[in-house]
Amino acid sequence: MSDRSPWVTDENAALLTDLYQLTMVQAYWREGLDGDAVFSLYYRTLPEGRSYLLACGLEDALRFLETFRFGPDALEFLAGRDEFSREFVDWLGGLRFEGDVWALPEGTPVFPGEPLLEVRGEIAAAQLAETLVMNQVHLQTVLASKAARVVAAAAGRAVVDFGLRRMHGTDAGMKGARAYHVAGLAGTSNVLAGRVYGVPIAGTMAHSYVQAHDDEQGAFRAFAELYPETVLLVDTYDTLEGVRNVVRLARELGDDFRVRAIRLDSGDLAELAVRSREILDQAGLERVEIFASGGLDEHSVAALVAKGAPIDGFGVGTAMGVSKDAPALDIAYKLTAYAGKGRLKLSPGKKILPGRKQVFRVEEGEGEARRAARDVIARADEEAPPGGRPLLAHVMAGGRRLPAGRVSLDQARERARAETALLPERLRGLEPLAEPYPVEVSAGLRAFQEEVALRVEGEGG
Amino acid sequence: MSDRSPWVTDENAALLTDLYQLTMVQAYWREGLDGDAVFSLYYRTLPEGRSYLLACGLEDALRFLETFRFGPDALEFLAGRDEFSREFVDWLGGLRFEGDVWALPEGTPVFPGEPLLEVRGEIAAAQLAETLVMNQVHLQTVLASKAARVVAAAAGRAVVDFGLRRMHGTDAGMKGARAYHVAGLAGTSNVLAGRVYGVPIAGTMAHSYVQAHDDEQGAFRAFAELYPETVLLVDTYDTLEGVRNVVRLARELGDDFRVRAIRLDSGDLAELAVRSREILDQAGLERVEIFASGGLDEHSVAALVAKGAPIDGFGVGTAMGVSKDAPALDIAYKLTAYAGKGRLKLSPGKKILPGRKQVFRVEEGEGEARRAARDVIARADEEAPPGGRPLLAHVMAGGRRLPAGRVSLDQARERARAETALLPERLRGLEPLAEPYPVEVSAGLRAFQEEVALRVEGEGG
Repeated sequence: MSDRSPWVTDENAALLTDLYQLTMVQAYWREGLDGDAVFSLYYRTLPEGRSYLLACGLEDALRFLETFRFGPDALEFLAGRDEFSREFVDWLGGLRFEGDVWALPEGTPVFPGEPLLEVRGEIAAAQLAETLVMNQVHLQTVLASKAARVVAAAAGRAVVDFGLRRMHGTDAGMKGARAYHVAGLAGTSNVLAGRVYGVPIAGTMAHSYVQAHDDEQGAFRAFAELYPETVLLVDTYDTLEGVRNVVRLARELGDDFRVRAIRLDSGDLAELAVRSREILDQAGLERVEIFASGGLDEHSVAALVAKGAPIDGFGVGTAMGVSKDAPALDIAYKLTAYAGKGRLKLSPGKKILPGRKQVFRVEEGEGEARRAARDVIARADEEAPPGGRPLLAHVMAGGRRLPAGRVSLDQARERARAETALLPERLRGLEPLAEPYPVEVSAGLRAFQEEVALRVEGEGG
Repeated sequence: MSDRSPWVTDENAALLTDLYQLTMVQAYWREGLDGDAVFSLYYRTLPEGRSYLLACGLEDALRFLETFRFGPDALEFLAGRDEFSREFVDWLGGLRFEGDVWALPEGTPVFPGEPLLEVRGEIAAAQLAETLVMNQVHLQTVLASKAARVVAAAAGRAVVDFGLRRMHGTDAGMKGARAYHVAGLAGTSNVLAGRVYGVPIAGTMAHSYVQAHDDEQGAFRAFAELYPETVLLVDTYDTLEGVRNVVRLARELGDDFRVRAIRLDSGDLAELAVRSREILDQAGLERVEIFASGGLDEHSVAALVAKGAPIDGFGVGTAMGVSKDAPALDIAYKLTAYAGKGRLKLSPGKKILPGRKQVFRVEEGEGEARRAARDVIARADEEAPPGGRPLLAHVMAGGRRLPAGRVSLDQARERARAETALLPERLRGLEPLAEPYPVEVSAGLRAFQEEVALRVEGEGG
């Protein structure tokens, strides 16, 4: 039992941060450290079996930075704690994010070490933003990347998101539906996502509807009367008998029968699809489609497609909704420059690329055969290598969005489609790669990294 | 870019549902199906390697049911879609949840097949509630169950939640911090969780703070001046050199040195802890504790404890925050009775226990040696087996909370502690069980299940 709302909104999001961000910021403030900082958000290694990730979540990161402020309730709470002085809390009340952001547009395939975004601004707000910016970019990149695999596995058949009930909380349900749209899903069952994002929503019926009726045939009849072009769930009792009940309904309704599809949700989906198809076809119901769901992931979808199972669309829930094989990324938000100097840390295995950077995607081939060959991570002011296209866009300046930071969800979806199509064929399969996609660090950035490391070793040791 | 808020609150939560819930409810409404339904929320099987789960999330499920209503924006959206009639949407505007709920109190260990909660009420609201009730109970049960393992592994040492940045969205961050408190964590880094739930918040410093200073020693000095009893992060450059910098600071400050602990965040934590302990002890800093973090989960925590590493507390983030080994449960919310009749479905492997039920935990032994021996799932009106204690409590009646539905977070935490202590020792370890904890279905419930199955086979086939 709690009297305060457990929901996060624009109004309280600034307080959704790690305590150490606030203690550090009070220290910066007290020490007069108000120089410009650069933070870089990137991931270190690909999850096992993955070939690339799809960048997503920038929109919510920018929304947070735009609306970032501590409201009266947050300030009252902080003032009541021993760590924070009244003077600091008052100063915090006026703090806004007024810095710059460069980022990979949503829908861009991203490889290890490449900045998904870089934040440059006064260190206080840039530091405080870490937790929520990471939380949102991490979540949506995890879910968009997983969904892209399911879409690839479905090989052109529609994939619909059924995951809301087992995704991790309400925010994951919303942002997931958004990320899925970017990744190319046909729709989501999440009605609020339809309202907020304008994404297509879809749904059929549940077993409970059939169970609430005294017989399956009666349930089908009632549902089809109200929703003539519906999808009927046939596996509540006996799947093939359920299909026969659909056929009986078709005979009963004659020309009024417009049911669009049946849904299989359990059992051996490949075999049941074949036998259901036969029953439907023999009854002249060739145009009734078969939709499959029930514990699917990209591997089972790919297996069904490979077997030639006559399935026209897939409903995918939990495995995609929690990205079961890779629910987390080793994403990091690291200080790479402060007060005009490159910064890094020397902890084993966690070497940082200092300063502001750019990522170039070097493409080869012409027209349809054009493909990404390698990426180069460089210093922000380096020239593009031959054939190299800069990926990081300037999306926010002085705390306000630039045109590149205003991208519709459909534009992000189109970018994901186009950019994924440019990847080498071997990256688009589900199998782990023998040879990963090459990501190089430019000579200029490498030299700068060594220079900074030498300086830091001299000072820090 | 979206003009509508992407945040879920009490005001729009009713629309955070699967589209099929709404289409089914319109069908129920049109068909005049307004009888009482019973829905049962349970999970089918334990994730691999798990011995029990810790029930959590009831508070948010009840909050949702209490505040459930479609606001003007939701109604406008639905009215604008082809599926829904104006008349139905108007009716929906007046719909409230006015039913009853029985539930396992938060912090109760729960086994496969046992209802975490049962909802009885008019079918419309009970059906519509499915998605969000599942979403919240699933999330918090996943996270509390994982955290209970980390707490067990730490064997009395403090465990602090560092997961917010990589948990799945803002809601997971909030509800996770709540679930972790129930499971026995010492605190969370999540400041807003501290504000909303009153749970202890904790934090140290990040590498960026050290990096923003020209040398580590200067960073330590400045931080300890502001926060004398702080925890200093020693691995930004060279861990043992960092520990020596702490020793130097202690010499410099003399009696004013009150630093509480150092934090190790990378490298071989067992070895670094031993060597750090030596350095600290040799300098007379025996009372400075060692806190460890960096990619920890219950197994690495247990290994550090088993090795006798001199670590006094653990910060655990991502692996716990996404429940990496088991990010999802096969939880289900199934219709088990409607209009006074038991209901089930016959899909393979998914057999339902019909009707309203009770779970009895049968205990054996006396005093300190008292332990749970087996559970019995029975019909709601059955008598308790000898030594059996009923676990499901009546928490809501007529849409309003009963006293058993008003439980503070600290009470839930205490319940988790006490109930977990009653489990047989073998269930509290991290290893998979050779023999699972016995869960029986009472003869009465089994007979009822067969009776319903026979009736349903007769009707549905």
